[in-house]
Amino acid sequence: MNILIKDILAVLPDGVETCSVYISGGLIVSVSEEPAGFRADKTIFGAGKLLIPGLINAHTHAPMAIFRNCADDLLFNDWLFGRIFPLEEKLEPEDCYWGTMLAIMEMLRNGTTSFIDMYHPDECSRAAEETGIRTVQSRGLLGGADDPEAGERRLRTALEEIEKWKGHDNISFMLAPHAPYTCDEGYQREIAAEAKRLALPINTHISESLAENETIRERYGCTPTELFDRAGLLTGTTVAAHCVHLTDSDIEILADRGVHVVTNPVSNLKLANGVAPVMKMLKAGVKIALGTDSAASNNSLNMFRDLSMLTLIHKGVNHNAQAISAREGFNIATKNGAAAMGINNLGEIKPGYIADLCILDLDRPNMQPVNDPVAALAYSANGSEVEAVIVGGKILMENREFANIDSARVVYEVNKICERIGTR
Amino acid sequence: MNILIKDILAVLPDGVETCSVYISGGLIVSVSEEPAGFRADKTIFGAGKLLIPGLINAHTHAPMAIFRNCADDLLFNDWLFGRIFPLEEKLEPEDCYWGTMLAIMEMLRNGTTSFIDMYHPDECSRAAEETGIRTVQSRGLLGGADDPEAGERRLRTALEEIEKWKGHDNISFMLAPHAPYTCDEGYQREIAAEAKRLALPINTHISESLAENETIRERYGCTPTELFDRAGLLTGTTVAAHCVHLTDSDIEILADRGVHVVTNPVSNLKLANGVAPVMKMLKAGVKIALGTDSAASNNSLNMFRDLSMLTLIHKGVNHNAQAISAREGFNIATKNGAAAMGINNLGEIKPGYIADLCILDLDRPNMQPVNDPVAALAYSANGSEVEAVIVGGKILMENREFANIDSARVVYEVNKICERIGTR
Repeated sequence: MNILIKDILAVLPDGVETCSVYISGGLIVSVSEEPAGFRADKTIFGAGKLLIPGLINAHTHAPMAIFRNCADDLLFNDWLFGRIFPLEEKLEPEDCYWGTMLAIMEMLRNGTTSFIDMYHPDECSRAAEETGIRTVQSRGLLGGADDPEAGERRLRTALEEIEKWKGHDNISFMLAPHAPYTCDEGYQREIAAEAKRLALPINTHISESLAENETIRERYGCTPTELFDRAGLLTGTTVAAHCVHLTDSDIEILADRGVHVVTNPVSNLKLANGVAPVMKMLKAGVKIALGTDSAASNNSLNMFRDLSMLTLIHKGVNHNAQAISAREGFNIATKNGAAAMGINNLGEIKPGYIADLCILDLDRPNMQPVNDPVAALAYSANGSEVEAVIVGGKILMENREFANIDSARVVYEVNKICERIGTR
Repeated sequence: MNILIKDILAVLPDGVETCSVYISGGLIVSVSEEPAGFRADKTIFGAGKLLIPGLINAHTHAPMAIFRNCADDLLFNDWLFGRIFPLEEKLEPEDCYWGTMLAIMEMLRNGTTSFIDMYHPDECSRAAEETGIRTVQSRGLLGGADDPEAGERRLRTALEEIEKWKGHDNISFMLAPHAPYTCDEGYQREIAAEAKRLALPINTHISESLAENETIRERYGCTPTELFDRAGLLTGTTVAAHCVHLTDSDIEILADRGVHVVTNPVSNLKLANGVAPVMKMLKAGVKIALGTDSAASNNSLNMFRDLSMLTLIHKGVNHNAQAISAREGFNIATKNGAAAMGINNLGEIKPGYIADLCILDLDRPNMQPVNDPVAALAYSANGSEVEAVIVGGKILMENREFANIDSARVVYEVNKICERIGTR
């Protein structure tokens, strides 16, 4: 299908201007100039609208949308061990499908076109394929010497899922050692070897909490970053979420290995883990992407809220009103997310790039007057301005209606799951 | 007009339950039980909706909506002296009317039913009266010995405006010494005396920045709070915005005098002023309300974003996941705002209380599943869920359409002003 988005104000790599965007075969084929012989199957008129590359949620756990607002204002251990883990034990695989469908509904409504996930790749891939959203999937691998069979089983399942979904559009995979404190060193090395053998990137959590750092210090006498580094898990294709509590030397390691750090500012505040040293990391050359984390600790999957938080909080805590400008934040939420996904023609509006795009309504009071559209994205938008979403050249949402989702059914099924497992 | 809101999930003072709310003569006359002889002129059915008291924006400068996204990522002095002040000099009084209309559109869309303002009471009151929103108005008073006539003129204008708008529904007034650094001590005492004579509350800014504290220390050898206290400006009806940089003794003074402190977490981060010591203030018994500050430093007037920031940031910076629960935050954004306005039957859904109410659509992906509606308000909502707004028993917005505002005209006029004064 060929799509023409005509005369629309667009956030381009080097500025904001009114242009026309031509889409064919899932790609942006031209910005402004009409390609010879182009015939639009669908034309969208851009007056009063803003075109942006889709936001990329570089760290989440989609099925956990089921747990939204069921465990709040709790200390971390009460939250995780007292509430989330017991609920997770009651989940059936199909519950993860419905939770992911709800998560995808929320992400599309708020302009997210890709997400990097760690939870249940089989059910998540099913939901992603049905809806058409782009995703990188991974199964959280936990394992150690106390129960080696469990770790092996999880790794086997992960590899089977990757085999099963290989070659499906818009879906790719990573291997996910869950965290330094949930994988022992042997298991870490085993995963690193498998990743190398299969040329799979790594997706993980590092130094989310001070407690994690203390645990690793006691067990291994080093930092979580140092531990993963010596296991061979930190490379230029590794995606590491959180990274809140880092030493200067950790930051050097992350920069040197080319790790993609995904910062999750809302979740880190909500679970009282603090504020990640993003300014220090940027200065050291660490690659930064942005994620919401799950709806159990955010409690939304709204990248506009995390973008706003990212561009605000580092100004406040560093007493520097120029820390992370609107444009820097927007790039982090788009092209840097694409880099974390390992896709080199994604996250910008450029010829040859994948057509993952959102159209926002500028005719909202909070978006007026239109003084600076990029500042508006970071500081004024709340996500509800998104009215159309295109992924890989296919329209997944138009006038806020989903092309491929029966929303009422999803809400019904998710609430039924909540009643069964007892989230209320 | 009598309104019945039937069978709706409602956030009541002590919990959340499904009830029916009866409104007559601008007041909530009953919650659940039908009053004898009640005849509804209008019935709203509550299935799938959530009823809350309207949010109260306890500190803003409404006309500055004109300056949204025109001065971002700048150091404070470049922002204020390089950009905002020169633009303000070009404003005509009527511009303030249009700016306020835009601000009111945004506030109603996001569930704010009252705002305490400091800018241009005459034009703001005109806009408030036309739209039906509730407001407390004040003119920022700047004055000192270097130009005593200017201060006198401003005070005279303020008193004339109060006289002019006396007795108008939904509009009340405060006297507003702008800040410790923009009013000298003589002027402060004069305003305090006028406020006492006319039984007017005080609205002001205190200790927004470290620079302010240094200036006052140099000039007077004390803190801004101590200075205002000795001028007689701090009483149980005083509303003081920001209060970011306070000593322990300042906090004791604010608690002892019964001052309403309005915290503006988003604006304080954006201008790099930091994080107000809200936990310390709450512990000391200081009354806390919530405000957005202006769209020039937020850059929205969305109380849901500030509520979310309020409930998140103090968890993160105090490393306490229980700091400011969803319910505490919600109370701060509603009933505490009503107290700051000096209205004792506002901000809760209770018989005898003023019918300032919002109806939210729960049928949004980010509000599902409905595990805990109060947590959803703080952590999941973005404000766009608000579909109807009632102020003083009158419907100001229904299905997101304004009853009394020609939005297209407002947007047109505001953009014309922007072109004239050069915000782009």
